[in-house]
Amino acid sequence: MLNTLSNPNSLRHDDGSADTPVIAPMIAIVGATGAVGVELMRCLEKRGFPVGALRLLASARSAGSTLPYGADQVQVDELRDDSFAGVDVALFSAGATISRRYAPIAVAAGAMVVDNSSAFRMQADVPLVVPEVNGATLAGHNGIVANPNCVAAIMTMALAPLHRAAPIRRVFAATYQSASGAGAAAMEELRQATAAHLEDRPFEAKVLPHPYAFNLFSHNADIDGESGYNGEELKAAAETRRILDTPDLPIGITCVRVPVLRAHSIALSVEFGRPVSPDEARDLLAAAPGVRVVDDRAANHFPMPSEASGVDDVLVGRIRTDLGDPSGHTLALFVSGDQLLKGAALNAVQILERLLGR
Amino acid sequence: MLNTLSNPNSLRHDDGSADTPVIAPMIAIVGATGAVGVELMRCLEKRGFPVGALRLLASARSAGSTLPYGADQVQVDELRDDSFAGVDVALFSAGATISRRYAPIAVAAGAMVVDNSSAFRMQADVPLVVPEVNGATLAGHNGIVANPNCVAAIMTMALAPLHRAAPIRRVFAATYQSASGAGAAAMEELRQATAAHLEDRPFEAKVLPHPYAFNLFSHNADIDGESGYNGEELKAAAETRRILDTPDLPIGITCVRVPVLRAHSIALSVEFGRPVSPDEARDLLAAAPGVRVVDDRAANHFPMPSEASGVDDVLVGRIRTDLGDPSGHTLALFVSGDQLLKGAALNAVQILERLLGR
Repeated sequence: MLNTLSNPNSLRHDDGSADTPVIAPMIAIVGATGAVGVELMRCLEKRGFPVGALRLLASARSAGSTLPYGADQVQVDELRDDSFAGVDVALFSAGATISRRYAPIAVAAGAMVVDNSSAFRMQADVPLVVPEVNGATLAGHNGIVANPNCVAAIMTMALAPLHRAAPIRRVFAATYQSASGAGAAAMEELRQATAAHLEDRPFEAKVLPHPYAFNLFSHNADIDGESGYNGEELKAAAETRRILDTPDLPIGITCVRVPVLRAHSIALSVEFGRPVSPDEARDLLAAAPGVRVVDDRAANHFPMPSEASGVDDVLVGRIRTDLGDPSGHTLALFVSGDQLLKGAALNAVQILERLLGR
Repeated sequence: MLNTLSNPNSLRHDDGSADTPVIAPMIAIVGATGAVGVELMRCLEKRGFPVGALRLLASARSAGSTLPYGADQVQVDELRDDSFAGVDVALFSAGATISRRYAPIAVAAGAMVVDNSSAFRMQADVPLVVPEVNGATLAGHNGIVANPNCVAAIMTMALAPLHRAAPIRRVFAATYQSASGAGAAAMEELRQATAAHLEDRPFEAKVLPHPYAFNLFSHNADIDGESGYNGEELKAAAETRRILDTPDLPIGITCVRVPVLRAHSIALSVEFGRPVSPDEARDLLAAAPGVRVVDDRAANHFPMPSEASGVDDVLVGRIRTDLGDPSGHTLALFVSGDQLLKGAALNAVQILERLLGR
């Protein structure tokens, strides 16, 4: 285990300057055994993040197990009120209930929190950040930064480079969301349900409410009685508006869970204030950090989950003038991004890097 | 084997009157061993269609095999120029090339053709028919009736009941298309690719151009260089316009192949000439023959391929005012329909029933 911070509180108002005293923070991961927790560790390691010390926290059920980090095996401890002593940065990915209870405790103990849950995402004093899109808003944090909903993170990566050039007037979206968005247990359920289906064995779903083998279904978040939209759709739309700083942008979205393991895809119809040609859009997207244009019409090669999985970039393709809008103001796009990376762990680590001025 | 027709040509100008002389036609199925061919036989049998005789036709490769029909085993013969002697009705489902060559031969031999390929769908003298939507256009046929593209058939079932009450001004659609749309071999490839993935074995795709296990990809139809739309999208849009008799309706559509075995789903944003409330839409759809409203917000129960597969009705749900259009003129819907049934075989048999005045 390496250095810890000389002054943890310096993280609180980090301005990215070169003389920041932070060398190698002690990092806590809350929800370390989950699908995102595991990816958080991989991202830190892969990006050569200077981890001073690592504290893995999870429920009592997982406590005592170990997880690999580099050459070490790190023990998983039970999350408790006193878990944050000495912690410089706490990465939360254990659901909104855990975040609501423990993130303030972590902050009080002197830690900076990057929270992957929905708990604080719409709170005015908590920046909701996709670093490539609105990284500047990080400056306003008060100890907690929110990591966006996976659909919002992936969608804004595709929308922001276009919006900067031609303001977006409205969005229609239909998602193709993978099992990983519902966690490691849902990924395992997809595998097991599918194996059972192939062998003609009965299988009882426990994690998701509908049969998942070779099937798809409307996202299982609760439905808002008034609008008929589900919670995932409302979150994705509200967070997209907040990240793009377009509080009045109309977004129609349908969120669907598909039998894919770990990357989300989105079909988009995006209306602009002026006509935007596919060539202009392609150039804007090709120049955007974190975006890769995959748009080979001759080879019929476009974004796919199989090529987005395990990849940092968000893939964007099928770029064409949308025939649903004869005015030429609307573009159609198809996007795939790794739900566990840009949709969760990678974005959280990128936030941390920005906070530390790396 | 039962009766044959007293006068096959009476089929040509059938007006649905009760005194039609057709009792039990001799039916040929071209492409009998394909996914749709098998379903055509099942539909005829399940609906108690009075089949006078059944002639199963396929490529030389399949000739000599037998397929069950009721208690009988029926031999599969090779499709040849002289295959249509004595045939009253020929149901084609072997691709556009076969239809272009053999449908005129069947007509010349005195048969009535219902063609499931794209060969004649945009030909002015060939009705393109979804019986519940535009069954009246059958009267204008000259020996061939076209069975629509599966997406167009399923989509128009959901759109037509609404369009009759409030004219549709435009449509945005994103599809979730199953393996069955690419045929029985694609369904088998999905099963085998998935089994290999679960067992961590390599698998080489032969039928579809991209890995299919737990993956999705843009529909593999060729891309139109000018518009950037693929052939499936252009077909689905053009045929939807023709079936609804709305030649200028703007339709933006993205067609995606998902790892589902046999039912297609579609996320729709439908703009009307006036505001249409979700309650009005629900009532209109609930009253439409062949449509079942599955829209239980409290139970989070909406259309799914697993519940649409093997089912005649097209399932429609997620009915809500689309938040992408603040004017309230747009509804969002989610639709699932069996690609092999309403998207192919069932619709063909329903066309036949209408032609025979049943």
